[in-house]
Amino acid sequence: MLPVVQIVRRPGILDLGWGHPDPALLPVAALQRATATALERYGADALTYGAERGPGPLIEWICARLAQTDARAPDPVDVIITAGASQALDLLCTLWTTPGDTVLVESPTYHLAVRILRDHPLELAAVPSDADGVDVDALEALLARLARRGKQARMLYFVPTHHNPTGSCMSLERRRALATVAAEHGVLLVEDDVYRELSYDDPAPPSVWSIAPPGTVARIGSFSKSLAPGLRLGYVTSHASLAQRLIGSGLLDSGGGLNPFVALTVAEVCTAGDFDATVARLRAAYRERRNALAKGLHDYLPAGCRFVVPGGGFFQWVELPEGIDAGELLPRAEQSGVSYLPGSRFYLDEPRRNTLRLAFSLYSPDQLVEAAQRLGEAIGRI
Amino acid sequence: MLPVVQIVRRPGILDLGWGHPDPALLPVAALQRATATALERYGADALTYGAERGPGPLIEWICARLAQTDARAPDPVDVIITAGASQALDLLCTLWTTPGDTVLVESPTYHLAVRILRDHPLELAAVPSDADGVDVDALEALLARLARRGKQARMLYFVPTHHNPTGSCMSLERRRALATVAAEHGVLLVEDDVYRELSYDDPAPPSVWSIAPPGTVARIGSFSKSLAPGLRLGYVTSHASLAQRLIGSGLLDSGGGLNPFVALTVAEVCTAGDFDATVARLRAAYRERRNALAKGLHDYLPAGCRFVVPGGGFFQWVELPEGIDAGELLPRAEQSGVSYLPGSRFYLDEPRRNTLRLAFSLYSPDQLVEAAQRLGEAIGRI
Repeated sequence: MLPVVQIVRRPGILDLGWGHPDPALLPVAALQRATATALERYGADALTYGAERGPGPLIEWICARLAQTDARAPDPVDVIITAGASQALDLLCTLWTTPGDTVLVESPTYHLAVRILRDHPLELAAVPSDADGVDVDALEALLARLARRGKQARMLYFVPTHHNPTGSCMSLERRRALATVAAEHGVLLVEDDVYRELSYDDPAPPSVWSIAPPGTVARIGSFSKSLAPGLRLGYVTSHASLAQRLIGSGLLDSGGGLNPFVALTVAEVCTAGDFDATVARLRAAYRERRNALAKGLHDYLPAGCRFVVPGGGFFQWVELPEGIDAGELLPRAEQSGVSYLPGSRFYLDEPRRNTLRLAFSLYSPDQLVEAAQRLGEAIGRI
Repeated sequence: MLPVVQIVRRPGILDLGWGHPDPALLPVAALQRATATALERYGADALTYGAERGPGPLIEWICARLAQTDARAPDPVDVIITAGASQALDLLCTLWTTPGDTVLVESPTYHLAVRILRDHPLELAAVPSDADGVDVDALEALLARLARRGKQARMLYFVPTHHNPTGSCMSLERRRALATVAAEHGVLLVEDDVYRELSYDDPAPPSVWSIAPPGTVARIGSFSKSLAPGLRLGYVTSHASLAQRLIGSGLLDSGGGLNPFVALTVAEVCTAGDFDATVARLRAAYRERRNALAKGLHDYLPAGCRFVVPGGGFFQWVELPEGIDAGELLPRAEQSGVSYLPGSRFYLDEPRRNTLRLAFSLYSPDQLVEAAQRLGEAIGRI
């Protein structure tokens, strides 16, 4: 029998490479209620070709939610519902770029976003980043170098809030500076904002979308982290011309909205109060896990290892002492019963080989402490 | 409030332009049962990142179904589940073509497939077709012309079974000839097979995929016509190298399977027997509608109009007398309370302007007879 799920579990290994949710935290009961009420409320309307931009009730709920969790709410006509964040990025590549366009990414950045970009005929270039995210001076220098070669960057993909893989959160000042430079140079900022709801200490900062000049940012949101990834439901908040390009595409004209049955189901989850309850539960659980992993790393990592505890999201970034290659360490770590993704996976070029990413979403606090201990032992044996 | 559904109804007009199902025929109760049992059976596995190719239980059901309804069943590893047929075509364009590639379409062909193709950096060319579908001699001549310009066609998109818009069904002999030529020239046949289950007289002929040399065809199937389009669920049966290219894409690696919650729900619909029951009900209802429209057209269309009653699908193609332009007729028809899509929409070039497409899926038999009468009157007044 072919598998149902993506994850492949390896006995004896605590695999912190997977940025997947703990199945025990997924809102099965809420979805049972919502599927029943969505089909009762909408009947056949939930099963026929949906409105291209996605169903009104979900869009209006998203706008109201962002009025609370972001610096401003979008106009409903500037929102479109997508089949997940990955599909949104794929759609932007198809509909908003031309072959040979230059697309920029942070370095390090979400490695699978790079793979989506590489599936399109684009030229990628890395923008250096520091602890505060995209280095805006370096971006301006890169844009100037591109201009001297007659090129212009079309998009910049970045994760400013609870970054994947580093866990960093871009300051408000940096967000403002980035928005200004992007607007000046006509670079579309593709803001991956999928961790906004998973802030464990302070509320997430305003999205770059919310503070940038109109037309500068396409912000990608998702229900994968806040509810369940198997729903394949996300959204884009942008501006009229971009929203119209997406809505007016052949894909949406032919198929209608991208995931209408699920979108109406999730609208029921949200309006029933189950979204708030789920997010509160997830925040509490993941906060505890983040703390447990941080304590474990503090207790067990050898001297010379460094890490900054993230304020949200799924990921803990670790710097090993200079000279230790996380890729070379990996087989030994797995012999010790722990795994992770080497940091080199997240760099377009010039990887920092002494880095690694740990996901704390999948395992219990006790298991995370155990994983930290195993990792510390593997490092110590080098 | 923004709309929920794609269709826009215009009071007083029987709009046979929409190739949408009648909401009254959509399987709301079956989906209510299936969502409950899927979440009960699979729990969190239905809500987490799904296997890239789609969930095993649905793939195995599809293979068993095609063993009954097609000339051979695919190997499960040659199937991937997609978020609808349109998304499958979009994915093939992204992952199986290179900018500037030539892609062929029949003429006439499904107009929104052309719009999906046009959203990618491809060069399109039309292959003439006759009452039996793609003209294979004309295809060979076109391939030879392309070769003289140093070009090769990468794909040919076509609808051999209950064609959209013409309703024609390609003969077995023609299917064999087409498969042979495509295999010789290395053209991937993209076989849109979404109407297979909606055959009203005889069983659908073997798919081209089922009789072609391995590697020649990617056949696109869908649950949009046989169950409900709002589910956004389809599949591709192809061959190992193509399936691997789709499964190995950034989009599927990042997001997991394309619509796993819905896929497992539909697996429950299918294994519970509700797929068979729904398809039997749809076939009976649409057969009656096809017959009613055909009788109406026979009774009310003026002399000189011609039509061939289709053996399945949603569409009745009508040829008006030479010299009558269906686009020019349209405003008068709408004044008479009936609408349709002018045939010119379905041609890449050199449209036959005296043609039009009527969808018989959305309206009751009585309404279809009324629509035929209104159409006949509008034509008669010219």
